[in-house]
Amino acid sequence: MNVDLNCDMGEGYGVYRLGLDEDVMPLVTSASVACGFHASDPGTMHRTVRLARRHGVAVGAHPSYPDRIGFGRRVLEATPEEVHDDVLYQVGALWAFCRAEGLRLRYVKPHGALYNVAAKNLSVALAVAEATKAVDPGLWLVCLSGSGLVEAARRTGLRHVQEGFADRAYARDGSLVPRSVQGSVLHDAAHVEEQVSRMVGERRVRSIDGADVPIDVGTICVHGDTPGAVGLIRAIRERLEREGIEIRPFSQQEDKT
Amino acid sequence: MNVDLNCDMGEGYGVYRLGLDEDVMPLVTSASVACGFHASDPGTMHRTVRLARRHGVAVGAHPSYPDRIGFGRRVLEATPEEVHDDVLYQVGALWAFCRAEGLRLRYVKPHGALYNVAAKNLSVALAVAEATKAVDPGLWLVCLSGSGLVEAARRTGLRHVQEGFADRAYARDGSLVPRSVQGSVLHDAAHVEEQVSRMVGERRVRSIDGADVPIDVGTICVHGDTPGAVGLIRAIRERLEREGIEIRPFSQQEDKT
Amino acid sequence: MNVDLNCDMGEGYGVYRLGLDEDVMPLVTSASVACGFHASDPGTMHRTVRLARRHGVAVGAHPSYPDRIGFGRRVLEATPEEVHDDVLYQVGALWAFCRAEGLRLRYVKPHGALYNVAAKNLSVALAVAEATKAVDPGLWLVCLSGSGLVEAARRTGLRHVQEGFADRAYARDGSLVPRSVQGSVLHDAAHVEEQVSRMVGERRVRSIDGADVPIDVGTICVHGDTPGAVGLIRAIRERLEREGIEIRPFSQQEDKT
Amino acid sequence: MNVDLNCDMGEGYGVYRLGLDEDVMPLVTSASVACGFHASDPGTMHRTVRLARRHGVAVGAHPSYPDRIGFGRRVLEATPEEVHDDVLYQVGALWAFCRAEGLRLRYVKPHGALYNVAAKNLSVALAVAEATKAVDPGLWLVCLSGSGLVEAARRTGLRHVQEGFADRAYARDGSLVPRSVQGSVLHDAAHVEEQVSRMVGERRVRSIDGADVPIDVGTICVHGDTPGAVGLIRAIRERLEREGIEIRPFSQQEDKT
Repeated sequence: MNVDLNCDMGEGYGVYRLGLDEDVMPLVTSASVACGFHASDPGTMHRTVRLARRHGVAVGAHPSYPDRIGFGRRVLEATPEEVHDDVLYQVGALWAFCRAEGLRLRYVKPHGALYNVAAKNLSVALAVAEATKAVDPGLWLVCLSGSGLVEAARRTGLRHVQEGFADRAYARDGSLVPRSVQGSVLHDAAHVEEQVSRMVGERRVRSIDGADVPIDVGTICVHGDTPGAVGLIRAIRERLEREGIEIRPFSQQEDKT
Repeated sequence: MNVDLNCDMGEGYGVYRLGLDEDVMPLVTSASVACGFHASDPGTMHRTVRLARRHGVAVGAHPSYPDRIGFGRRVLEATPEEVHDDVLYQVGALWAFCRAEGLRLRYVKPHGALYNVAAKNLSVALAVAEATKAVDPGLWLVCLSGSGLVEAARRTGLRHVQEGFADRAYARDGSLVPRSVQGSVLHDAAHVEEQVSRMVGERRVRSIDGADVPIDVGTICVHGDTPGAVGLIRAIRERLEREGIEIRPFSQQEDKT
Repeated sequence: MNVDLNCDMGEGYGVYRLGLDEDVMPLVTSASVACGFHASDPGTMHRTVRLARRHGVAVGAHPSYPDRIGFGRRVLEATPEEVHDDVLYQVGALWAFCRAEGLRLRYVKPHGALYNVAAKNLSVALAVAEATKAVDPGLWLVCLSGSGLVEAARRTGLRHVQEGFADRAYARDGSLVPRSVQGSVLHDAAHVEEQVSRMVGERRVRSIDGADVPIDVGTICVHGDTPGAVGLIRAIRERLEREGIEIRPFSQQEDKT
Repeated sequence: MNVDLNCDMGEGYGVYRLGLDEDVMPLVTSASVACGFHASDPGTMHRTVRLARRHGVAVGAHPSYPDRIGFGRRVLEATPEEVHDDVLYQVGALWAFCRAEGLRLRYVKPHGALYNVAAKNLSVALAVAEATKAVDPGLWLVCLSGSGLVEAARRTGLRHVQEGFADRAYARDGSLVPRSVQGSVLHDAAHVEEQVSRMVGERRVRSIDGADVPIDVGTICVHGDTPGAVGLIRAIRERLEREGIEIRPFSQQEDKT
């Protein structure tokens, strides 16, 4: 059994730093790199891709609605065509930094509000998937488990992986409890570890209201910008390893097929 | 004998239109497409690349300093490393739109103040050339004739083409007379035609102060955003054709070698 | 009887021009000036305020969601607190240009998607009204007739004027038919004139589905960016004058009280 | 004897935080608040002005060239007219937040590259001064001691205060040693304290090459974004108080006259 650990990276901007990229990079297997629309800038993207290369971490693009002030967390009434072109632009930009560092861009994972909208709105999900495929049909699409993004990946013929969240509470329908709801973000390390362990080992997650929800994930999203993040990621790794689960990039696994 | 006609394209932004792209595209052989830093946005880039494809026009990236309000015409004290990453970002973004339309990106031509700074500052020119090469070593670099960009292309091993301007006055040293100087932009059609004809046919240009300056150009920059632009480009084409000069993309020529 | 004619102005950006401000300014009594979030920039704002001063036109601020690429026409999931601060910022910026030109800023009219959201969402409307009042309690708020903005103006104690649209179709409930619906924008001059004449003279408007809807407007919004705009505004003026309706700034009227 | 302590504040942006505003605010007498061009955004500006109000700290505007990625530290080839309008825009925006919090905006201090350019280029300095005066002729201008900004303030009739830097090395001509030069930023607490003490008490500063340079300052700029910043500011305060120098806002002092 195996699983991938992915983390949002390169979310600084100009003089601003966000997240502990240097500390987190050695602990994950995939880096979802911001592309300048919700965070990051050309210099930050370059540094982040270089850091991923040094640690042998797979690089994915993390495109967003154009909203730096809101960090891409606010829904924007963009048409599918606008989303398509925004994603194309961002993925192409990050692809160039991968080229410059001799890496192959591996996947696309929409960020924040775009991820949530795409999970529920198939037109938007298809726009994301088609833009991804237009850049490189060999790219993977990272999808909220059970969401419309999975359907969009299937329809466009893109490889995809379903994603689980280590520190986010789930609703009974398998969707994420919105950040605005109390209890939506898990802070207790034991709870987080347990959630990851069950997701990967038993393919189930306990919802916020106590139901057992089936889930099928190939990658676990961890966060690198909260206090104690590094310790928590280390604890997750150790737990998974103790349970005999190998941690490796999802994108690598399937390339072998 | 042959020459390329290139024009800056896709310089609208959001609801704004600039230039007569639809009218000019059928008349040129290369389109230098803005990449979102001085002008353009993802939707405009997509429309412009699609238009170029329809007319069989070669597409190049037209990266700039990040300065939309100043249209990339203001010098910004950016380091060569910042220029490198800014160019990489922009070229990658446009590359993606070319991929989506089944085209190959052909060349990079820096815009406005970046073009002028790169012409005189070798570190900046090298930053542009290295970013171009990092995306694709098969890309061409479009260089002000006789400038530092030519030297940078040579040092990095990039193919390059020297550019002449149909409607700009030249100084005795072969540089462009700055836009702020009276007489720097030629408005007289006969004068423009004559300048192009001599540049291509005799490899010389008359400087603003009357000297004969040697010049060796493979592409002529025409403008599509001035009154009478379309008529002027047509007149240039007819003049060149009358003189037996074939108009074709510079990037195509060398691919045949 | 009297009415005000207002027009969105200063909607260019950098090198881009939009609308026929020079031609329209002499024909209207109030100018709603963009503040840099959906359109405009400091130089454009200054030129526009100066132009309004020259023609004795009352100046209002036209704040928007931060969305230049979408021209402020896309709904953004901003909190009321974010809207409040965004409006405060924009109104303050325009206020400074009025000060520099010796004018008094007269009113605030939210733009595009913000106008539409505020019309239906009282929290957003209150955020706009409170930010307006915070800058100057003597400012007017321009409100879609019968909308939540009117209620917000009342609650905050702001003076307000209700607005009718010369060239937009109305729904039976007095709201504007969305731009995405066929027939939402009136192009026929006679139809536009008739709509304005009835709004002002009879306080009624014919809805898109033929109902007679009561309406009470103190200002009519005309547009200056469509073909034939200037002729249409002139026709509206003449029609109103023929009917004995005086055209003067709404903000001036009440100052006399 | 008395002096003012000012600190750049509100330099976060969206989710990003920069500087220890909450800790530093109680220790200074003037807050130079970023206005959205090099840093800050409407929400950050509001929070910062509110914080200043709570601590009775005088608020000034800290306008910049439009360059968020470069944090306003890169020279931009803007015309004096562009600088004028950019400053007007930013000062007006911050003025509105002061109004909303019941404060009076007290001063303008240009940021980063704009401060340095204005110090040496009188046209740019005059543009800054005139924009400041246009908003409110009662505003103060904060000027590098002995620089062109002082001259610009005199010519426009603006009140001004000369500024000294606690932790920056000086050249023999009284200008700041550029940040790119080794030793330009002082890190040794004793050295910093000593420099402040001499500036205020003896009206002299030791240049980086050992000369004694006369200087006449009414405000000392301290920084709140370096490790140990809070301790250092506290040490400066204690030193000044031990030497019998009162710390109070420069803007308050002169209002009493």
